[in-house]
Order: sequence, then structure tokens, then C-alpha cells
Amino acid sequence: MNSEKSDYVNLWLTTSRLETLVDGIFAIAMTLLVLNLAVPAGLSYLSEAAFQLQLAELIPDLYIYALSFWLLSAFWRINHQQFYFIERSNPTMVRINMIWLMFVALMPFSTNLMVNYSDFYTSNIIFQLNLFFIGFFYIINWHYASRTNLLHKEVDKKTLRYFRRTNLVLPILSLIAMVLSFFIYSWSSLIYLIIPVLKKISNHL
Amino acid sequence: MNSEKSDYVNLWLTTSRLETLVDGIFAIAMTLLVLNLAVPAGLSYLSEAAFQLQLAELIPDLYIYALSFWLLSAFWRINHQQFYFIERSNPTMVRINMIWLMFVALMPFSTNLMVNYSDFYTSNIIFQLNLFFIGFFYIINWHYASRTNLLHKEVDKKTLRYFRRTNLVLPILSLIAMVLSFFIYSWSSLIYLIIPVLKKISNHL
Amino acid sequence: MNSEKSDYVNLWLTTSRLETLVDGIFAIAMTLLVLNLAVPAGLSYLSEAAFQLQLAELIPDLYIYALSFWLLSAFWRINHQQFYFIERSNPTMVRINMIWLMFVALMPFSTNLMVNYSDFYTSNIIFQLNLFFIGFFYIINWHYASRTNLLHKEVDKKTLRYFRRTNLVLPILSLIAMVLSFFIYSWSSLIYLIIPVLKKISNHL
Amino acid sequence: MNSEKSDYVNLWLTTSRLETLVDGIFAIAMTLLVLNLAVPAGLSYLSEAAFQLQLAELIPDLYIYALSFWLLSAFWRINHQQFYFIERSNPTMVRINMIWLMFVALMPFSTNLMVNYSDFYTSNIIFQLNLFFIGFFYIINWHYASRTNLLHKEVDKKTLRYFRRTNLVLPILSLIAMVLSFFIYSWSSLIYLIIPVLKKISNHL
Repeated sequence: MNSEKSDYVNLWLTTSRLETLVDGIFAIAMTLLVLNLAVPAGLSYLSEAAFQLQLAELIPDLYIYALSFWLLSAFWRINHQQFYFIERSNPTMVRINMIWLMFVALMPFSTNLMVNYSDFYTSNIIFQLNLFFIGFFYIINWHYASRTNLLHKEVDKKTLRYFRRTNLVLPILSLIAMVLSFFIYSWSSLIYLIIPVLKKISNHL
Repeated sequence: MNSEKSDYVNLWLTTSRLETLVDGIFAIAMTLLVLNLAVPAGLSYLSEAAFQLQLAELIPDLYIYALSFWLLSAFWRINHQQFYFIERSNPTMVRINMIWLMFVALMPFSTNLMVNYSDFYTSNIIFQLNLFFIGFFYIINWHYASRTNLLHKEVDKKTLRYFRRTNLVLPILSLIAMVLSFFIYSWSSLIYLIIPVLKKISNHL
Repeated sequence: MNSEKSDYVNLWLTTSRLETLVDGIFAIAMTLLVLNLAVPAGLSYLSEAAFQLQLAELIPDLYIYALSFWLLSAFWRINHQQFYFIERSNPTMVRINMIWLMFVALMPFSTNLMVNYSDFYTSNIIFQLNLFFIGFFYIINWHYASRTNLLHKEVDKKTLRYFRRTNLVLPILSLIAMVLSFFIYSWSSLIYLIIPVLKKISNHL
Repeated sequence: MNSEKSDYVNLWLTTSRLETLVDGIFAIAMTLLVLNLAVPAGLSYLSEAAFQLQLAELIPDLYIYALSFWLLSAFWRINHQQFYFIERSNPTMVRINMIWLMFVALMPFSTNLMVNYSDFYTSNIIFQLNLFFIGFFYIINWHYASRTNLLHKEVDKKTLRYFRRTNLVLPILSLIAMVLSFFIYSWSSLIYLIIPVLKKISNHL
């Protein structure tokens, strides 16, 4: 009788509403990043040069904004790619994605920590852990979807293999970075340069 | 003539836009929770250990965040499940869901109250009342949808019975917790442990 | 040649993305209302009764929240109803709806003004003007849609008449309230009681 | 083997989710603009006339709000128009749109800078640069879409030419304004009057 009941629980989920929720959360996280950039008050009586100096102090904030925006857009792209091949959903998959979304939503916090306190290895480890868990739940999501027949029927073995490989890039990278951060603190920003390179490599394997 | 007129009023609602609105509200509520986590300023000159201590003070905030996020994701799942079986909508159903959304949107407030002031039974009762009304409007929504033929035609009696039973879990639980909170204040966090257990039980009944 | 060119400009708009934008704006406006409710800090050492008194001071805020939420949900319902009958869109219709959205997004501001400073007739007039323009752009939107063949073909004259009549309720009411506010300041909250009554009346005409 | 692999990467993107993300970001940016308008506190004991004077001080804020709202709605319209003709998407197109969204999300910041510090030519140049890049990425997006066969098949040469021409309006205008701002600071607000005029002209060419 339990298996019959669980049908009611498992049948109801299409991926479309989950995608709408994910898109909504990314849209908000991305927009709010920019709204942190505040125009400083009371600069009206400065000279042009002094005004420019004051604005120049916003450049690090602008860098955080652009960085987080770009990272979030990359995570959105990977989610979009996975769900192109996922046809159905179920409560467990929703739960997996909710935990994933929690770590995605933590990104602005971790990035902020990283940029403000990059000299502490604690900041580095928190940031790498955040990236690790985002990547880890991509693996869990794809593994669960392919194991429980939630994928489209036409997904072939090559696609499955492709995803299994590319999904490993982010978690492995963050683990390496975590170990390295104990020795070299300032490696923090170099990690972002490696991500696109590794993506290209995984495409060629 | 009135019945003819009310046709114009009743005809126009599909569930898709209501679902978009619900998804939007959940996406925003969930994302804003995380943005409350602020990186403390002026810690640059601390030692690594002192920096870790400062960050450790954010752990209760992180707990509130994760808890509210999880509760909201559970409410979203139930809404998603109900609307899988609901085909049409009408102004009354929209109104029912709007009141439900008001209580959903109050959750971050109540959770916050609960965690900060768990020693007051007033906090406990407000929190339980909030949960009670969310559960109560799930019942109203399902009752109204099934009584006014807004469900898909293929929904059978077993499904109807399944929903009628599982919908009772949350309101009954919150009423029990409300009574208990007069005697034992600190029961607050245990209530969350009971929810998934009861969900499993209701699946087996 | 101009008419040919304007085809490119006029062809491209379906109503679906406009509806997504409207739903998004309503979802955000509604959710942010609640997030204004802040749990007061530093009440841990109060007695239970004193704690309740402190919480009771949040009741007016809760009232503003519920009121704005309800008004916004009513505006969303009317928009939903109109766009059920509107099939196509064009740049002018988008512009009409953007101005309408500006006034919708101003509602939290006007409501806030009304509740905090209801003794000034200026507050009353600003609030009534806001309501008036929201209602006014519903008329413009419907008028434009029906005049430029943007409606579904099966929309009959009865439906057209029904909308033309109900669309008048909100603007006329706000004009009356505006005149009255010069004589009786405190009429402010009574206006909300009249809205549902008038909606019922317009259904029976 | 690389070309085969890149199929997996290129196949998965429909435009619908990208549109949802864009709509979400616009909805949030537009709504948050209004929420900056705060009702001033502690005016209860003023006279009616003094109260009106205090409210009158909000008019510049209201102007910023309306201006940014209108600019954002215009950008949304152009994006909507382009994506009506774009059928498929791919990772590069998503990246192009993400950079475009970064500049869109910066608009409230630049507008704010412009209105508060219009006497500095630095503000003017930042504002014009922001407009320039928004317009520039419209060109890139359309160019990329038409070159890589992401458009609907029925898009004819006339439509392609129409877009190529109208896409030039915004970037050229902002470059002219940038040069002019070195000589005449206060040209800032006149630029908005020229935009609709140029749009009409480009329709007639």
C-alpha cells in the first residue's frame, strides 16, 4: 500500500516550477548584489579630481559585484544545462535542489568574506567549502536524476558520461584550493582564472 | 443575469499565473533570508583565532537562515503538489491563496521571534499560530478546489482522501505544540524534528 | 514604407512576458512589505507581560502590511482578469502597463503615508490620487486593447461592457474620497470597506 | 571529437529560461527603485503647509524613480523585441546577456550619480558609458544571434537590417553625449528627450 501512496507523492512534480523558482532566486540574488553599490553622499562641494578619488574607492565593491554576478551566472548556466536533460522531478530531487539553492544563496556572503578578509585562511576555506558544496550537489542531482529515471529517454550514454566528468571539475578544484590556502593565502583570486580553463579542458576530454 | 455576469468573473483564471506569483514570492522570501547574513566589518587586524571566534557568532544566524529556508521549501512543495491536481482557478481561490501567502511571508518574522525569544511562551504561540494558519489555508484551498470542481477530472477518490489526511498534519501538530508551550517553553526546536516523521507516517496510513 | 516598418515593431509582443514581469513586480512588492516587520532587539530580560506589550506595538505595522498586501492582490486580480481576454500586445500597451506598474509600485509608499499621517488631508489626497491613477490606467489599457484589436476574437460585447463598467468603480470612488477628505480627514480607512461592496454592486448591474 | 562534445554544450539552451531570468531581474530592479522612497518620520506635529513642504522634498527622489523605471522599461522592451526573433540560445549568448544584465543592473547606481552630482563631468561620463555598454551588448547579441543561426528561420533581411540600424541609436547617442559633457555639464537631462525622437527617426529610415 505504501508504494501506491508514494505514487501520489512522486507523480506531481514537473521541472517547470522548480526552474521558475531557481530563476527567481538567481534573479534576486544577482540584482541585490548591485543595489549594494551606494552613491556616496555629500560630495557636491569637492573638486572634480577629489570627486573622482571618492568614486575610485567604489572600485573594489564593483569588483565584488562583477565577480559574484559572474559566478552566479555560471551556476545558473550549469543548472539550466542539467535541467534541459531532466524531464521529471520528485520530492527528493526538489529537496536536493533546495539544499543546493541554500549554498548558491550563500555565495554573496562567502565572496564578501573572501574579498574583505583574504589574508585569513578561514575566509579562504569557507569560500572554497561553499564552492565545493555547490559542485557536490550538482553531482548528487545528476546522479539521482539518472539513477531514478527522471531524465529524458533520448539521453545517451555519451551525455551521461559528459556530465559525470564536467561535474567533477568544481568540487575537485575547490578541494585543491582548500589545501593550498593553508600554505599560500593570496591564491584566492587566481582560482577564478582556473575555472574557465578547466571547463575548456573537460570539453576536450 | 447575475449568474451570467459572474461567468465573466469566474472564467478568466488559469492556475499558471497564480503559480508564477507563488514561485516569485517564495524565491524572494528565500533569497532575502540569506542576505541578512552580513560579514562583520573591521576584523582585519585580529588574529586568525579571534577572527574565527567572531565568525562563530554568525552560526545562530546561519541556523535561522537554514531553518526558514527549509520550512519555506517544504511549504512550496505542498503548494506545488496541490496545484498539480488543480486545473482551474477562480477569484475566491486566488483570495484564499493570497491570505495563505500573507502567512507564508510572515514566517521569517515568526522564526526570528522564536529563535531570539524562545524563553517567552508568547513567541512560541505566535510561531505555532503562524504554522497553524499556513496549514489551515492548505485545507481550505484543497476543500474549496474539490468542492467547486476546479480539480483535474482524473483525480480519483484515493487522491482526495490522501490530501485530506496529510493536510491535517501541520494544523493539528501546531495546535498540540501551542498547548505544550504553556508548560515547557524550550520545546520550540523539537517541533521541526516531528514534522518529517509525521509526513512519513501520513504516507503510510 | 513606414507602415511596413512598424509591423516589425508591433508584431513581436506576446502578453506572456509582460505577465511574467507583472507577476514578478507584484511578488517582490508583496514580499518586501512583510520584511519591514522587524523583531525588536534587546527584549530578553523583560517579563512575559512587558514582552507582550512590546510586541503589541507591532500591530499597526501588521495592519499596514495586511492592507497593502490585500490591495496589491486585488490589483493583481484585475490585471489577471484583463489579460485573460487580451491576446496580443504592442509597444504602446507595454508603455501603458509600465506607467500603471509605476503607480502600483508606489502603493506601499502611499499606504505608509496614509497610516502614519492620516490627520493631514495631503496624505489622503496623495493616497486617493495613487488609487485613481491605478484605476485610470486599467481603463486606458482596456480601452486601447479593445480599440486596436488586441483582444481574443471570441470576446463578445457583453464582456466589453462588463469591463467598461467595473473599470469605473475604482477611479470614481477615489475621486469622491478625494473631495470628501477636505471635509472629513478620518474617512481614510472606511474607503477600503466600500471597495468590495461596490465590486459586488457592479457585478449585479 | 571536440565538435561532437560541444553539441552537448550548445544544444541545451532554449530562450525561455533566459527570458524568465531577464524578466525577474527587471522586475526586482524596478520594484526596489520605489522602495527607496521612504516616508519621513516625525512630521505628525507639523502644520498642513509645513507637512506639504517636507513631502515636496521627496520630488527629486520621485523623479529619479520615474526616470530609472522608464529607462529600465525601455531596455526591457528592446530585449523582448530581440528575443521574439531569437529562437535558440547557447552558452555564449547567455554570457553576452549576463554581461548586458550587469550593466542594466548598474543603471540605478548611474542614474543616482547623475542626478546627485550632475555638475561633475565624471558623473556624466559614467552615466553615458553605462548607456553605451547596454546599447553595445544589444548590438553584440543581435550580431551573434544572426551570425550563428539562432534566429527563427522566417526572419527576413528587412528585419535584420531594421535591427542593425535601431541598435546603433543608443550607443552613438551616448558617445555624442559623452563628448558634449566635457563642454556643457548640464546637458544631462536633455539626453532623455532625444531618445524617443531618435527611435521614431530610425523607424522611418
